Amino acid sequence: MRRKGLAIMAAQTVAVSISSSVDAEAVDLGPASGLSCRECGERFELGPIFACASCFGPLEVAYDLPSGSPEELKKRIEAGPANIWRYAPLLPVPADVAEKPNLNPGWTKLVQADNLARELGVEQGKLFVKDDSGNPTHSFKDRVVAQAIEAARAFGFTTLSCSSTGNLAGAVGAAAARAGFRSCVFIPHDLEQGKVVMAAVYGGELVGIEGNYDDVNRFCSELIGDPLGEGWGFVNVNLRPYYGEGSKTLAYEICEQLGWRLPDQLVIPIASGSQFTKIDKGLQELIKLGLVEDKPYKLFGAQAEGCSPVSVAYKGGHDVVRPQKPNTIAKSLAIGNPADGPYVLDIARRTGGAVEDVNDEQVVDAIKLLARTEGIFAETAGGVTVGVTKKLIEAGLIDPSLTTVVLNTGDGLKTLDAVADTSQATATIRPSLDAFRAAGLATS
Amino acid sequence: MRRKGLAIMAAQTVAVSISSSVDAEAVDLGPASGLSCRECGERFELGPIFACASCFGPLEVAYDLPSGSPEELKKRIEAGPANIWRYAPLLPVPADVAEKPNLNPGWTKLVQADNLARELGVEQGKLFVKDDSGNPTHSFKDRVVAQAIEAARAFGFTTLSCSSTGNLAGAVGAAAARAGFRSCVFIPHDLEQGKVVMAAVYGGELVGIEGNYDDVNRFCSELIGDPLGEGWGFVNVNLRPYYGEGSKTLAYEICEQLGWRLPDQLVIPIASGSQFTKIDKGLQELIKLGLVEDKPYKLFGAQAEGCSPVSVAYKGGHDVVRPQKPNTIAKSLAIGNPADGPYVLDIARRTGGAVEDVNDEQVVDAIKLLARTEGIFAETAGGVTVGVTKKLIEAGLIDPSLTTVVLNTGDGLKTLDAVADTSQATATIRPSLDAFRAAGLATS
Repeated sequence: MRRKGLAIMAAQTVAVSISSSVDAEAVDLGPASGLSCRECGERFELGPIFACASCFGPLEVAYDLPSGSPEELKKRIEAGPANIWRYAPLLPVPADVAEKPNLNPGWTKLVQADNLARELGVEQGKLFVKDDSGNPTHSFKDRVVAQAIEAARAFGFTTLSCSSTGNLAGAVGAAAARAGFRSCVFIPHDLEQGKVVMAAVYGGELVGIEGNYDDVNRFCSELIGDPLGEGWGFVNVNLRPYYGEGSKTLAYEICEQLGWRLPDQLVIPIASGSQFTKIDKGLQELIKLGLVEDKPYKLFGAQAEGCSPVSVAYKGGHDVVRPQKPNTIAKSLAIGNPADGPYVLDIARRTGGAVEDVNDEQVVDAIKLLARTEGIFAETAGGVTVGVTKKLIEAGLIDPSLTTVVLNTGDGLKTLDAVADTSQATATIRPSLDAFRAAGLATS
Repeated sequence: MRRKGLAIMAAQTVAVSISSSVDAEAVDLGPASGLSCRECGERFELGPIFACASCFGPLEVAYDLPSGSPEELKKRIEAGPANIWRYAPLLPVPADVAEKPNLNPGWTKLVQADNLARELGVEQGKLFVKDDSGNPTHSFKDRVVAQAIEAARAFGFTTLSCSSTGNLAGAVGAAAARAGFRSCVFIPHDLEQGKVVMAAVYGGELVGIEGNYDDVNRFCSELIGDPLGEGWGFVNVNLRPYYGEGSKTLAYEICEQLGWRLPDQLVIPIASGSQFTKIDKGLQELIKLGLVEDKPYKLFGAQAEGCSPVSVAYKGGHDVVRPQKPNTIAKSLAIGNPADGPYVLDIARRTGGAVEDVNDEQVVDAIKLLARTEGIFAETAGGVTVGVTKKLIEAGLIDPSLTTVVLNTGDGLKTLDAVADTSQATATIRPSLDAFRAAGLATS
């Protein structure tokens, strides 16, 4: 299934390559030295392409990473700004990226979650939540869009675009507004009102497509190959190799915030699987650069039962991910045919991790558990990772005596419906002490 | 009117003082040396009191501010954490506050708003937005609640409480969860569903009061004076002197982020007026400590026309603020009888600033202006400050050649309704290139 999808993408790549007039020599994306095929290793010049012309494999950014001592690099990073651009030497962005107008995402909090640890039976001081709801549009999408923006500048695109079910549309709209791009994003026409408003408020074009998310995607692929799409950077299609690199910054930040230490165990949500693979890539880079000690770590993937193609494949011992039709409240993870699923399986197995899923009720319980223990209101994706963490601890797969980091990639304000039924006033009373006394809430 | 309110508060203070068993000697709130009356200057020991026993004036925290050279203090601050606790030497909190479990708010972005500047006719590089939507629960309330939590710890309270119309309830619920306090917060029973969910999800007690916000407030005042409220810290009542100090951190951060420089002009939303007065206090402290050059600055207050008691008094040349019945979409600013209104008038006049208001339509326009120029989605209060800034520039009261900082104190996700009608899809089409072409959106 994956090959078939990639073949379609590659065919479009040809059209893009033809219509694109990028001068690769003039492109300055800092340490990015080219693109390489994840499957066959073939190299390509930097440009708005995303699939290998030889084998149709996905392309990823290759780097000339900084030389010099780890201590020098650490100091340079630590002296950088409190956002992802402190890691500019490790990202496909020009050296002066922090001076350009952008949303400056990242450097979100790594919360030592001792209250949650107590409830889950994890040793005190060993459990952390990386809370990406602190980003400008309150999801990790700001990290990836920020990379795509720099690639779009380098390739001379003037319009930013994407297919989205909501979160990404808002992130692209906001980033485009700040960076001075026109934006035109595509969503299914029947999205929830809140998501439509969030995507529209930044003033770009917002186009509802009569169809589902797959129809939107198919339409975007057509548009990329058509002269109508000339000058358009689709952050999650023709800019995808650059876009994806933004997730590496989660790995960098977690290690730096732990005092330049690798966590022992990391729990990561799986949608397309890209974030999971890029976090692994980021950790490997830190090891190579000598910024952290080279020691084993385990990566765990988290899915919702209603969209668990990778988890099912993992538990079944398969290498191939069989697509599913999503049906879960964790809509931001609801990709039934995840492009990077097979790579997730490889990495989870190689590192000694696992992929697990939880049902919608467990997602809601986990959102509320995180809220009442740590004061973090996560979106459903955060409920998935916390729920899976609990399940993996109970199953003995996560060691409660080792350092574990759980990702929350979005904000509960965006998925209020998930907890609305069960998050209501404890009591409603007349404004009198007698009424309050009668409600029995006074004693602790 | 103000005196009458304070008299009621003072009467309650007696009850609190009697029921409180705080040993003032044992209280460690860092540089806080006592409380002093804003009206008559009388000093009191640190404790959960909020009105002067002599004149009924409001109490505020007095400090032994750090001695030593400004350069040493700057270095100490700059080496501190990326949150408000970098300013612990200037706040009523113990020195080890950063080690205690709390939400660690603050150090939010100061965005150089060149796109907005262009639209408003302000010189490039001179207009900034201090974006407090980046706080943990996405409003500046996290700053003030964090101070109240430390006071509550010092005074031995075990329950945190407040009266709220939504934002504060969420901030208290989240902070209490993290810090290990029980919480019990009071809201009008008929709040919007979204705000109820946000207040309830952290798992504390949430009590709906059959009545309006005034009824909720009155009930809380009764509760403080009753044995039922023993051990309860009401962040915005008996902990108010400490709570309010959190707004000083906005002044500190703005100046540090400008490179230890005072802005020339600051536009601040007015609800109770407390934030306005505390920002002035913070700026004055920085001058006294030699951390910034002593030069004039102007503070401008911003209100919504539908709740503009301070603006009306300012424009009428009055010293007294006549209460209003609020009717505006800017609900987080809708305090009809603002406790610190007279002080706002004093400061605006003393600094050469002003107080102005905009109507709801202008609020919506300003929210959308900020979103499409800077990618910042502000709550209605941010629409008020941006709208007032525009109006004051047009009126010649804000100088477009000087450094101006506009506060956005909350997040647009919390007030989606304000822009929902006018933030919709540009077009809805079938998934075909022909349909897209026909919609006329392809060219930039």
